Amino acid sequence: MKKSALQQARATYQPKLPKALKGAVKAQFGAPTNSVANQEEIKALFPNTYGLPELTFVEAEASEGKPLNVGVILSGGQAPGGHNVICGLFDGLKAINKDSRLYGFLMGPGGFVDHKYMELTADIIDEYRNTGGFDIIGSGRTKLETQEQFDKGLEILKQLGITALVIIGGDDSNTNAAILGEYYKAIGAGVQVIGCPKTIDGDLKNEFIETSFGFDTATKVYSEVIGNIQRDCNSAKKYWHFVKLMGRSASHIALECALQVQPNVCIISEEVEAKNQTLQDIVNYIADVVAARAEAGLNFGTVLIPEGLIEFIPAMKALIAELNDLLAHNGAEFAAVEGQAAQRQWIIDHLSPANAEIYAALPHGVARQLSLDRDPHGNVQVSLIETEKLLGEMVAKRLKDLKAEGKYSGKFSTQYHFFGYEGRCADPSNFDADYCYALGFNAAMLINSGVTGYMSSVRNLVGGTDQWIAGGIPITMMMNMERRHGEMKPVIQKALVDLNGNPFKQFAANRDLWAKETCYVYPGPIQYFGPSEVCDQCTATLRFEHC
Amino acid sequence: MKKSALQQARATYQPKLPKALKGAVKAQFGAPTNSVANQEEIKALFPNTYGLPELTFVEAEASEGKPLNVGVILSGGQAPGGHNVICGLFDGLKAINKDSRLYGFLMGPGGFVDHKYMELTADIIDEYRNTGGFDIIGSGRTKLETQEQFDKGLEILKQLGITALVIIGGDDSNTNAAILGEYYKAIGAGVQVIGCPKTIDGDLKNEFIETSFGFDTATKVYSEVIGNIQRDCNSAKKYWHFVKLMGRSASHIALECALQVQPNVCIISEEVEAKNQTLQDIVNYIADVVAARAEAGLNFGTVLIPEGLIEFIPAMKALIAELNDLLAHNGAEFAAVEGQAAQRQWIIDHLSPANAEIYAALPHGVARQLSLDRDPHGNVQVSLIETEKLLGEMVAKRLKDLKAEGKYSGKFSTQYHFFGYEGRCADPSNFDADYCYALGFNAAMLINSGVTGYMSSVRNLVGGTDQWIAGGIPITMMMNMERRHGEMKPVIQKALVDLNGNPFKQFAANRDLWAKETCYVYPGPIQYFGPSEVCDQCTATLRFEHC
Repeated sequence: MKKSALQQARATYQPKLPKALKGAVKAQFGAPTNSVANQEEIKALFPNTYGLPELTFVEAEASEGKPLNVGVILSGGQAPGGHNVICGLFDGLKAINKDSRLYGFLMGPGGFVDHKYMELTADIIDEYRNTGGFDIIGSGRTKLETQEQFDKGLEILKQLGITALVIIGGDDSNTNAAILGEYYKAIGAGVQVIGCPKTIDGDLKNEFIETSFGFDTATKVYSEVIGNIQRDCNSAKKYWHFVKLMGRSASHIALECALQVQPNVCIISEEVEAKNQTLQDIVNYIADVVAARAEAGLNFGTVLIPEGLIEFIPAMKALIAELNDLLAHNGAEFAAVEGQAAQRQWIIDHLSPANAEIYAALPHGVARQLSLDRDPHGNVQVSLIETEKLLGEMVAKRLKDLKAEGKYSGKFSTQYHFFGYEGRCADPSNFDADYCYALGFNAAMLINSGVTGYMSSVRNLVGGTDQWIAGGIPITMMMNMERRHGEMKPVIQKALVDLNGNPFKQFAANRDLWAKETCYVYPGPIQYFGPSEVCDQCTATLRFEHC
Repeated sequence: MKKSALQQARATYQPKLPKALKGAVKAQFGAPTNSVANQEEIKALFPNTYGLPELTFVEAEASEGKPLNVGVILSGGQAPGGHNVICGLFDGLKAINKDSRLYGFLMGPGGFVDHKYMELTADIIDEYRNTGGFDIIGSGRTKLETQEQFDKGLEILKQLGITALVIIGGDDSNTNAAILGEYYKAIGAGVQVIGCPKTIDGDLKNEFIETSFGFDTATKVYSEVIGNIQRDCNSAKKYWHFVKLMGRSASHIALECALQVQPNVCIISEEVEAKNQTLQDIVNYIADVVAARAEAGLNFGTVLIPEGLIEFIPAMKALIAELNDLLAHNGAEFAAVEGQAAQRQWIIDHLSPANAEIYAALPHGVARQLSLDRDPHGNVQVSLIETEKLLGEMVAKRLKDLKAEGKYSGKFSTQYHFFGYEGRCADPSNFDADYCYALGFNAAMLINSGVTGYMSSVRNLVGGTDQWIAGGIPITMMMNMERRHGEMKPVIQKALVDLNGNPFKQFAANRDLWAKETCYVYPGPIQYFGPSEVCDQCTATLRFEHC
């Protein structure tokens, strides 16, 4: 494996640990906890792991622990710093006892069920310190949900003498970790389960988990390239750049990038939903900003769009639901209609008037996509819609109308971008390198404390690592009951952008100015070696949430 | 203007100058020069500026020069480091005499012709040191070609007492700088013209100009994000990522990125043309790599594609030429054909058999685009074709055929990317920051030496700045005659990828291995503050060309 110069230099970085994890530690337990909602139902579902106390690590006298055999799984989409969680876990286990062993299950939870694994030895671990990616053992999207999977996995754990499993994943994977932990506890399997909060989307956070790892690095990469685009935009002064950002279920990435780069427009899906805005409302808002800037001679700008926008627009949700229904029940009749124009008209004729109007107003290409591309369950594939182009085209149309009314006389040329894969595997920032290493090291300490059903928690993150607090949070504490695929399930509450939270308020207080003027900020690429004020900044989201 | 932490820290960076420019300098002239081809014709076109000698600066006794009033123009697309050229020029002029003045013409050559300008004073200059973008004065694509423009520009030069003009641009802009210099010399205008080699495309280089500025930084940004995508690709192991890279007239960017990241496939347009490959040949090559990797269980990979590929494919060039012709002469008849299928058939029926076959093999969407989207001159708009998607779709089709023949049994899912605007305005790397500053400072010295029609030249770039050689190259020396828009014109020879050059040979020697194995390298983001081996690397292209 040929390593770049940066990787070679970065390999020597020693992630900083919270003070409490620097020497021997002991667990200090708090009061028993409750889930954030639906306490009775969740208690009933987790009789063995509900109500566990919060746990904080404090310094203790040095004492050698017993060797531990531990398994680790990377679950779901990549996030910067996953390797450092594993490195921290490895170093933590070795600090407890040098004969401890760490096994990685390959390509995600599937490897656990199918008994595909490798032992992670020091020489392998050392190759991956402070690097991006999940390639050390791979990741996958298999969901650990069934008892059959749990039992199948237990076979390999027994075989390898593994007594604890660390699952690195998002809200769903951690929910499943809690269910697995409860099951192993219930059957007396003798296997602890510990979760680690991973997702670039930033939607796994709460009072106890201040941020998920990877969000810091990924948003910095996106902000770098958006900043570069903005500088280009402000130099050439001739394009409107529409930038879609990964993250379907929340708009944290778009909001963080907006706080970093100060674009002319940023749409926040949660606000669209709360205000019951239509697609046309959003289009009109953008068109008004374009027109106002054109008035000032500024025929250029930037628009940030969260990937999940369409699914947050109440009217679009209703249209999509009716379309799914219509095509499920009348698919054969629709399929018999010949020609695109006739198909389009057939759909308009068969939708309720409100939805027919919305459908008719969509650009033909998008409307067609909604009627043709369906997933194996017969559902419209919303994720195939290129939202950034849809908005750009609809804004162009709206501007044409405004021009006809004499309300706009500018030029409108567009460029489109979608950023996601560019940031999920970047080398972790100093923040993520430290945070992830601490999460992994801390997970080893949780295992050594004998607990199960906990998420590794490192808190008080805005200050330096010296002020970080290490411990564990019972996963059931973060749960509520939600409807998923028609059934009520216990799940970790997903953190959407809080419209009353400080990050959104900061954005809302400034966006009119940013729309009108050109207030672009150019963050530049992540720096690993320079002055601390450049290299060790946390996200604006974290700062505003806690300061 | 709110500045990011990086910008604040980076503002203090002091670009390094070549030894010869550190103190007072004097010009040392070489022998008279000749153009690279068509000597007689070019001599006739440049009677006053042909055959000038090469110029090198050497140390001299300190002596104060006269104050100089100088104008500067940014011409064409953005490139990282443009601001540092202007900062170096400013500092150079002030070093010659503190009463020198620098004027910037706004939004490119258009500002020169229209008399839009600003004086660049120390406080303005200091705001832009080591930053990306061209926003200090803006750039534009107006071409300086006519005597009327030259005369109009001269008015403002006279009015401001400007005796020298620095034009920062690509091959075309520098060609025009030479023509302008010749004209001002011929009419005794008393205005020197100096060019500076700018373009991220890397196609302005030759024996005397080792690289154009911006290429280093832009390719590093692209390599960063491609590297990140490759790490994701190698972690998730489920996508083929098709990455199109900016640069229509040469493939230097794609080649440099390939040398940096070691992708599975990189197409070099110049090779496609030299080998007279068809679109289908390229598709088959990619499909074969996909199939071979699938055979080894690797259903993922990366493909780099230069933006200008389509126009380099001889058969596509012929098809496009015939289409332009056909639709120009029979546009009315074609417009009368109703329905997409009938239009498609009409085109197939009216093309020559060879071109009809190529047209029929194109995905319908692309074929349709070729028949409908025409520019104001009636020409097919090749640049609108999303080459990355075209190739992805055709590869999918080819794989389906291979599967039917039992020669392929893998999975093929794609992701598409296009990188260009992400890199053109990045903060310049240390190399570009130093190189650009030196080019600008050196331009001031050329002005002080009284020459005109020269390009600022800083050479011997692979060693440290201490070994850099500063001087000037007569622009006519780089010229030959080429047909442009039907007329023979004197132009600077565009540097295409040299298939006998060392950079291409390095790529060609390794590509089969990179295709089969997974040899990805992850360069990471540009570092400005770290160890020299990380921060001060030049491009692989430059290194391989000169070592």
